[in-house]
Amino acid sequence: MLKLQPISKFLDITASDSPAPGGGSVSALAASLGAALGSMVCRITMKKNANVAIQIELESVLIKCEKLRDKFTMLIDEDTNAFKKVIDAYRLPKETAEQSAHRNAAIQSAYKDATVVPILLLELCAEAIALLKIIGEKGNKNTLSDAGVGVLMIGSACEGAVMNARINIANITDLSFVEANKIMMNSLQSAVTNSAHQILYRINERLFSY
Amino acid sequence: MLKLQPISKFLDITASDSPAPGGGSVSALAASLGAALGSMVCRITMKKNANVAIQIELESVLIKCEKLRDKFTMLIDEDTNAFKKVIDAYRLPKETAEQSAHRNAAIQSAYKDATVVPILLLELCAEAIALLKIIGEKGNKNTLSDAGVGVLMIGSACEGAVMNARINIANITDLSFVEANKIMMNSLQSAVTNSAHQILYRINERLFSY
Repeated sequence: MLKLQPISKFLDITASDSPAPGGGSVSALAASLGAALGSMVCRITMKKNANVAIQIELESVLIKCEKLRDKFTMLIDEDTNAFKKVIDAYRLPKETAEQSAHRNAAIQSAYKDATVVPILLLELCAEAIALLKIIGEKGNKNTLSDAGVGVLMIGSACEGAVMNARINIANITDLSFVEANKIMMNSLQSAVTNSAHQILYRINERLFSY
Repeated sequence: MLKLQPISKFLDITASDSPAPGGGSVSALAASLGAALGSMVCRITMKKNANVAIQIELESVLIKCEKLRDKFTMLIDEDTNAFKKVIDAYRLPKETAEQSAHRNAAIQSAYKDATVVPILLLELCAEAIALLKIIGEKGNKNTLSDAGVGVLMIGSACEGAVMNARINIANITDLSFVEANKIMMNSLQSAVTNSAHQILYRINERLFSY
């Protein structure tokens, strides 16, 4: 599993001439880092802030953030596995008409999986950014830049997920699948990036006020 | 060393209630991931593109990209170490006037180090984005989303570096240090983010044309 690899090893295999892990797994890792920073800000604030209402709110945010972190981390491997299935499908024999039909069906199915994984990442980024909004507002002032980097990571993971979904969806011939997913992608991307900009704006305002 | 930790372990210690590793180390890791993706696109393109001029150009870009990746990866630890020095300085005794003066000098020196590390990250991001501009233009079309995620990672690392530098520089009393670094930071940040937006715009144009 990729998540069990040392960081330097993961970087080496990403930098190699093998196409996976690539941008999809890196986007999932970026989202995992964003969720981890969100959890850190919750934990530090809960330790330092005596306000019981904030403690209760952040405890519930922390639980959700940690669940999202688990899911994001699983997607690091799932994206690479989905990509490998596409490669495997292309390698199927295509000598007879039957083989060719089977290969085409396998390619289409693999591209759908390779599109669904980044779209799931995108959906989870929308959940994460809603948590980071609360974290950016209620988080301890000394951890403001950590919350900000968390937002940047989720924002980039979202943009990366869209690029990865788009490059795969272009190969899919099932037009109803393509249309439905493109509409969902566009609306999720707008929501996440708008939210990320707003949160960063407020965080930078608080940082500037130092 | 943090870079030798498994990814899941790095995520766990980031998510813990210890303030380091935090946003600074995560920004350096994001930059390392961006450089790794840049190298991957160079390697895949060199393998698949028979154009000798492009091969020679990307070989030189690859060498620079790998050197930057090494430096980015070292900054993952350097940022955490610089932060720990700040904490250590605050823990120095301050009972006598002499102790207090020594402690203040140590705190100021530690904050300068903790500002210089993200500023170095920012300078290296400017070098990396210049390489990704070439990679985005000359890279194989199938690796376009990988180049795009690389740009996103460098762009976020740059924004993260600025937030981290800003939160530390606010504690520094040496105004000539503060002013000189703020001016440099602003100009580097504008250059990197403008460049990142332009490269992403062109990559998305090529992705849309699929």
